[in-house]
Amino acid sequence: MQDGAEVIKQGALGVENEKITYVGTIPSEQEQAQYDEVIDCRGKAIMPGLVNTHGHAAMTLLRGYADDLPLKTWLEEHMWPMEAKFTNVQVHAGTALAAVEMIRSGTTCFLDMYDHMDMVGQVVAESGLRARLTRGVIGLCSEEVQNQKFDEAVRFATEWNGQAEGRITTMLAPHAPYTCPPNYIQRFVEKAAELKLPLHTHMSETAKEVAQNVQDYGVRPVEHLRRLGFFELPALVAHAVHLTDEEIEILAQYDVKVAHNPGSNLKLGSGIAPIPKMLKKGIRPGLATDGAASNNNLDLLEEIQLAALIHKGINQDPEAVPALTALKMGTSYGAESLFLDQEIGTLAVGKKADFITLDLTGAHMQPLHDVVSHIVYSASREDVVDMYVNGVPLMVNRELLTLDEEKIRHEANRAFQALLQ
Amino acid sequence: MQDGAEVIKQGALGVENEKITYVGTIPSEQEQAQYDEVIDCRGKAIMPGLVNTHGHAAMTLLRGYADDLPLKTWLEEHMWPMEAKFTNVQVHAGTALAAVEMIRSGTTCFLDMYDHMDMVGQVVAESGLRARLTRGVIGLCSEEVQNQKFDEAVRFATEWNGQAEGRITTMLAPHAPYTCPPNYIQRFVEKAAELKLPLHTHMSETAKEVAQNVQDYGVRPVEHLRRLGFFELPALVAHAVHLTDEEIEILAQYDVKVAHNPGSNLKLGSGIAPIPKMLKKGIRPGLATDGAASNNNLDLLEEIQLAALIHKGINQDPEAVPALTALKMGTSYGAESLFLDQEIGTLAVGKKADFITLDLTGAHMQPLHDVVSHIVYSASREDVVDMYVNGVPLMVNRELLTLDEEKIRHEANRAFQALLQ
Ligand SMILES: [Zn+2]
Ligand SMILES: [Zn+2]
Repeated sequence: MQDGAEVIKQGALGVENEKITYVGTIPSEQEQAQYDEVIDCRGKAIMPGLVNTHGHAAMTLLRGYADDLPLKTWLEEHMWPMEAKFTNVQVHAGTALAAVEMIRSGTTCFLDMYDHMDMVGQVVAESGLRARLTRGVIGLCSEEVQNQKFDEAVRFATEWNGQAEGRITTMLAPHAPYTCPPNYIQRFVEKAAELKLPLHTHMSETAKEVAQNVQDYGVRPVEHLRRLGFFELPALVAHAVHLTDEEIEILAQYDVKVAHNPGSNLKLGSGIAPIPKMLKKGIRPGLATDGAASNNNLDLLEEIQLAALIHKGINQDPEAVPALTALKMGTSYGAESLFLDQEIGTLAVGKKADFITLDLTGAHMQPLHDVVSHIVYSASREDVVDMYVNGVPLMVNRELLTLDEEKIRHEANRAFQALLQ
Repeated sequence: MQDGAEVIKQGALGVENEKITYVGTIPSEQEQAQYDEVIDCRGKAIMPGLVNTHGHAAMTLLRGYADDLPLKTWLEEHMWPMEAKFTNVQVHAGTALAAVEMIRSGTTCFLDMYDHMDMVGQVVAESGLRARLTRGVIGLCSEEVQNQKFDEAVRFATEWNGQAEGRITTMLAPHAPYTCPPNYIQRFVEKAAELKLPLHTHMSETAKEVAQNVQDYGVRPVEHLRRLGFFELPALVAHAVHLTDEEIEILAQYDVKVAHNPGSNLKLGSGIAPIPKMLKKGIRPGLATDGAASNNNLDLLEEIQLAALIHKGINQDPEAVPALTALKMGTSYGAESLFLDQEIGTLAVGKKADFITLDLTGAHMQPLHDVVSHIVYSASREDVVDMYVNGVPLMVNRELLTLDEEKIRHEANRAFQALLQ
């Protein structure tokens, strides 16, 4: 995933404690003897773990609950009333289910923006995954409740940053310009500057919300957030579907990170983000699933494939978003988008040992001519065989080592049923 | 998949010889005792096998060979020179590899349009799959070669129709209006009428080819084919990406069948077919992968998901192509598109026992709230557990019963390497 790097055939990866210490061709037997353990990965690709740059893990509980509806109806009439019933029980159960699904589909690191975030922190700690966590705050409420939510978001971000052997880092996240008044957003910006934390928000997901922003504040969301100082700090915006060329210029100029959610944007009929234009301006978008309720899964290989396919189709340009770019969007660009690229995103000496292996022997991977092409266009979640995060195995040969899948599946179904009472 | 039908919970399917004899809830133990064998499908969905309505199976050999190029360059500079080297060896090896991939991903019936079709017939016979086969003929050659190809296409269609216990049926297929002169297409139309066989062709895949048709013949491809009498017979067109509203009307009026290839059309940058408009006019498109060289796989569940997603996205309409419609496109509409809907496409008493089972216990299928939604938006190829065609098991518990997968994988890689000599 490093720019300019080639696939290493007959490759090997060396790991000591939580870090990568060697990347190259297979070392001599003598050199191998210096390692405590040698694992044979014949027939597999070793690659960086996938990075999911935007989501709401607990919403896996609402997978398939209200399909094929417009964003506004879906949110206001279906998601929000159900989510209002969510307690710690649902968030723990839904996030644990999400963790199983993510490990099984190759995601080693994810961003989560939700409520009851202590539960999410617990699941991340137990599961062994890496995560950028943030309490997503909707400000359509009294000042008193706004203050409570703000304090809670700050408490969570402060308490959990650096927890779980450093696997957990945090952010601050007003939910969106259309759900938070400007002065409320500004408070998050100021606090983020003080705590040296990155910012995250939903931005320009639908044409409707952009029009509403113009009506309410006289400017489109990019200019609105720019004026609020949002882009002065490290900031990640999710969606960025409806952008003018000028807005793309502004995002590039401020080095704003973008979480591209192709599956969710398609499914909700929100539109298709202008990714080829962003790439031309030097923006390196990460990929994301968004919540499973609008996707309906957390399979990042699928998002990589969608990113490689849909922009070619709508632009009638088969060179839009090449396979390797899509793969970088799911790994190294994702790490950059979460401001974690010093630690993860590529296989390089000194980085954290967050990696997966992918089976290359399936019929759909033959002839084994172009590994990058096959991973992007043909691999699927079950091709992910092993996963290591921070040098610790979370899945070996498709067996989960940190989570009790059967129990989690059972509890997820029970927690969902409780919502229907 | 029957119009108006509901998912049967705690369902059962009865099979006698090659036919379905019961569809309903689980029968009493007494009734069950009348069957020779009872198979427990707890935790699985039973559904019709998927139908792939357009493809070139042997092209799996060229998977990932020349990615991310425009159709014309890709075809003329990469595919055709490689395919010119194809012998019976490559077609047998590539088709066998495709058969493995199709069985493993739930496709029980496929259309194949290629050359060296006796090899394809052999693989279909051995594999146990069902197929609609046709020698695809390119007419950009001398009259003598045209005549040879024509005779060969007719011979194949006549000899193989009804073979392999009736699992093989045939068609006639001039490759495309831009690769076959009008009088050559007309000969196929006349012969198809005489032999009572359906017709198949590529149509309006790219904007360029439509413009070329107008330049060469003064009309767009739909009117061109209409004038040649193509639509007077049962006819299936692949792609139909670039259509005017008037052309959609004509296709609907003549009951022309459409093979929608979302993955291939996206990948080659050809565009996106106006499926929602077709559905409104009563056209019921089938789904297809096209050859693996432009997809790059034969996974029909993926095409079902793409069909459910992309039309919502580009039309900014979350109600475009609902999940159930996409699933029908991959099954019952597919059967209609191949003129096999009397035999397959739904689970109904009297139809052929072509069905698959899908594991519903994966983390990505929880909570198990809406089975149709989960199959369309979240299932992947490895969720297909069992496959039966004509009442005969081809895969049980992910184990192939008719094909030697390891040998086929090895031969496919060898046959591909031989092309690089
Ligand atoms: Zn979101
Ligand atoms: Zn084709």
